[in-house]
Amino acid sequence: MRSQRHGGCFVLFLLSLLVVVVVVVVAVNVPAAAAAADEEAYLLQRPLVIELPTAEEVPAEVWCASWRLAAEADNLAPWKAVPEECVGYVREYVTGVAYRSDLEVVAREASAHARAARVGDDGRDVWVFDVDETLLSNLPYYAEHGYGLELFDHREFDKWVEKGDAPAIPFSLKLYKEVRELGFKTFLLTGRSEGHRGITVENLKKQGFHDWDKLILRAAADREKTTTAYKSEKRKGMEAQGYRIVGNSGDQWSDLLGFSTSARSFKLPNPMYYIP
Amino acid sequence: MRSQRHGGCFVLFLLSLLVVVVVVVVAVNVPAAAAAADEEAYLLQRPLVIELPTAEEVPAEVWCASWRLAAEADNLAPWKAVPEECVGYVREYVTGVAYRSDLEVVAREASAHARAARVGDDGRDVWVFDVDETLLSNLPYYAEHGYGLELFDHREFDKWVEKGDAPAIPFSLKLYKEVRELGFKTFLLTGRSEGHRGITVENLKKQGFHDWDKLILRAAADREKTTTAYKSEKRKGMEAQGYRIVGNSGDQWSDLLGFSTSARSFKLPNPMYYIP
Repeated sequence: MRSQRHGGCFVLFLLSLLVVVVVVVVAVNVPAAAAAADEEAYLLQRPLVIELPTAEEVPAEVWCASWRLAAEADNLAPWKAVPEECVGYVREYVTGVAYRSDLEVVAREASAHARAARVGDDGRDVWVFDVDETLLSNLPYYAEHGYGLELFDHREFDKWVEKGDAPAIPFSLKLYKEVRELGFKTFLLTGRSEGHRGITVENLKKQGFHDWDKLILRAAADREKTTTAYKSEKRKGMEAQGYRIVGNSGDQWSDLLGFSTSARSFKLPNPMYYIP
Repeated sequence: MRSQRHGGCFVLFLLSLLVVVVVVVVAVNVPAAAAAADEEAYLLQRPLVIELPTAEEVPAEVWCASWRLAAEADNLAPWKAVPEECVGYVREYVTGVAYRSDLEVVAREASAHARAARVGDDGRDVWVFDVDETLLSNLPYYAEHGYGLELFDHREFDKWVEKGDAPAIPFSLKLYKEVRELGFKTFLLTGRSEGHRGITVENLKKQGFHDWDKLILRAAADREKTTTAYKSEKRKGMEAQGYRIVGNSGDQWSDLLGFSTSARSFKLPNPMYYIP
């Protein structure tokens, strides 16, 4: 009996151990199995575009990605602020790897275009760069102001600009140096006002931008114009002086569209604000 | 002793049960805890744009998303095929919820623009629609041809077109009906050749598109022109006839850019092919 009892106890212990093992194996594998089943169901049942999910089936993150894409493809009407439900999405995007990857791909495309273009000997080939969110990043400012949720506050933003601490966007700095080395003239065309010339020069130099050929800021006479009109007029002026605009880098469509547009334009991503 | 033995066995059993409970609790919580720790580390250590990851740190999916964004924002040079490493990404995109969501957001923006525009009494307000990947979807064809990986094969594609089985993009169908109800003339301007008029009419009608005012197909004389040139000329012709182009929906920039452009253009997503 004793040995039986002992044996019974041992069996109970073994059974308990078995239960532990089974539970662990199941606990570890259930999520993986569920994921695999999900994946399979997804592959088999995934509808073509013709079979549509209802609006409720679109997760907020997917909808916000669609909103961002629509902004980048110039499909949105003028917008004043990031939709409230997308603020978290925009924060994740601009502080994560995707924004940096997007910036890098655009810079690479621009670089390929610059290298393929044959720069003439006459010093008339120009690359136009916008400043904010193109050469310099105001992300530290927007991090303090809701990443585009807050309506634009000129006074607060001016205070930030006057610190002269906006960091370079490294891919743009690399592109800037490359087009200069290729022999392009570099014209910086910014919506910043003439009153900020000093601090802008200081900020740019501190961040490694040197030897630009022109830095064009918004004069009092340009204040009421849309950016599209102001920048188009300035580009037209460049052409009138015999320059050929081979490339134009900007984060706003208003940096790139209008008239006297560049041979090719490069739209850097910016889901935080819109300037008409 | 007996009762002690029994007690010992019971304790052993309880201990085993405790082990089960502890193991289960740990197994369930470890991934969550790890995720929370990851999240926290991410929030605390996440770099601003100025501190860049090296290229190796960009996951393939993020890079492919950047490639797609660059395509949609017209930042890419003409491209012949989807990059090989992005074929899986593109397949997931066009067969998943994101593509449909992107199509829906663009259609909604277009609809808002149509409703805000005041349609005149003179019947001269026009909405221009492209056909392929705008009103009709060729996704069933591309599903059989690598989702953009394969170089475009005119013969194979023509066979597909001649079936007349391309499904409607439902958001576009809804927009189409809405702009007609608002009083817009609907001009369908397609890169399909005049020889495909019959099957295109049949396919469109079968899918619910009716009563368009013009269906303009590519004539023999237009064959050598780029789409941008061909469509710009046709839009110029519309303007010459006194029409006002209020909206233009297309999946290619060559549907939208050039001259005689629309008051507003709507770029539908298409990461599968590029037409200059």
